[in-house]
Amino acid sequence: MDYSRIAPMMTHLWAPMAAVTSAWQGKYNAQIAVAISAASIVPGKPRVAIKIQKRNLTHDLIYKSDGFAINFLSTDQLDLISAFGLVSGRDTEKLSHVPYRLGPSGSPVLKSCWGYMDCRVVNALDGGDLTCFLGDVLEGDTLGETGDQPGHDKGPLWWRDAQRQLPPELIDEWNQKIAQEREFSAESMDNIDFTPWTSRS
Amino acid sequence: MDYSRIAPMMTHLWAPMAAVTSAWQGKYNAQIAVAISAASIVPGKPRVAIKIQKRNLTHDLIYKSDGFAINFLSTDQLDLISAFGLVSGRDTEKLSHVPYRLGPSGSPVLKSCWGYMDCRVVNALDGGDLTCFLGDVLEGDTLGETGDQPGHDKGPLWWRDAQRQLPPELIDEWNQKIAQEREFSAESMDNIDFTPWTSRS
Repeated sequence: MDYSRIAPMMTHLWAPMAAVTSAWQGKYNAQIAVAISAASIVPGKPRVAIKIQKRNLTHDLIYKSDGFAINFLSTDQLDLISAFGLVSGRDTEKLSHVPYRLGPSGSPVLKSCWGYMDCRVVNALDGGDLTCFLGDVLEGDTLGETGDQPGHDKGPLWWRDAQRQLPPELIDEWNQKIAQEREFSAESMDNIDFTPWTSRS
Repeated sequence: MDYSRIAPMMTHLWAPMAAVTSAWQGKYNAQIAVAISAASIVPGKPRVAIKIQKRNLTHDLIYKSDGFAINFLSTDQLDLISAFGLVSGRDTEKLSHVPYRLGPSGSPVLKSCWGYMDCRVVNALDGGDLTCFLGDVLEGDTLGETGDQPGHDKGPLWWRDAQRQLPPELIDEWNQKIAQEREFSAESMDNIDFTPWTSRS
């Protein structure tokens, strides 16, 4: 199948850019994610689903803590793409210079973001290369535009817009990272583990 | 939690309107769905995830056949919202007046739509009220605008735009249907079955 034939549909199936955070036993981390979708039609019981690649530290923290927070970036938070997306939490403490508090799930909620949802995992699905976590939204708020002079809210940050504003060397670095992630996914996405999430060790 | 505080984020986490189809043992069906998301970063192995409420006939057909097709509606296919979304396939043969062929998964692929992806289920997650199906895309194409005089492609149909064009009585009917679905979901979304998808009967 020629991917370019389905690409126009796929572009509509990703979410705005978010810093997905989690914490476990004193380790806090954040990564960039766009595989986020709504999973409930009941306003009194909101749910979301996020897909996180297995080799990421954030994946392990969510898997162990059953908690995560989705912090949608504001259009003026381009700097967080490299701070959270281009380094590994195994090498550095990514949140050391970013103000946050802990939400009810125990996950870091950024003080500055377009909007956040703090969530508790209720079930999870193995996709071989990734885990899809289904989570109850415990707490959330849309803060709107951040920065010193907020005007008309520009909405959350989308990758297509970020891409136009980031310096070329950063785009190169991002593409190299994605290429590595694709390699990992291509090798592992057929190795699906059907063990129930509740019986994980 | 006040849902209105997270509603601006949630509006970005739904997909364009699609007719999700499936077939099993001579029964063919279609329903409207917007809980569709991308699930692969590998162009050579595209995947999607869809969430389908358990009480829908399409759910049973997907569950039994392991196949489904996502047919994104074009902006001139408002009529399919009521044809597929406001009646049950248990009462009528919804596809009797709609031209289709069978895709490689055995699911009906609409001859007229903005774009389609025919998929085979590789894993599934129980959400209590719904099942989230993870599927490999076997075949797909973006056809663009349908109709007799296609001009500049208007993209797929979004609910926010459909809502402005549908007659008020149809919107009322739709809202009544959603109210019933919400009731079902609210009652069942905590009853999550952790049995692996592979051991389903």
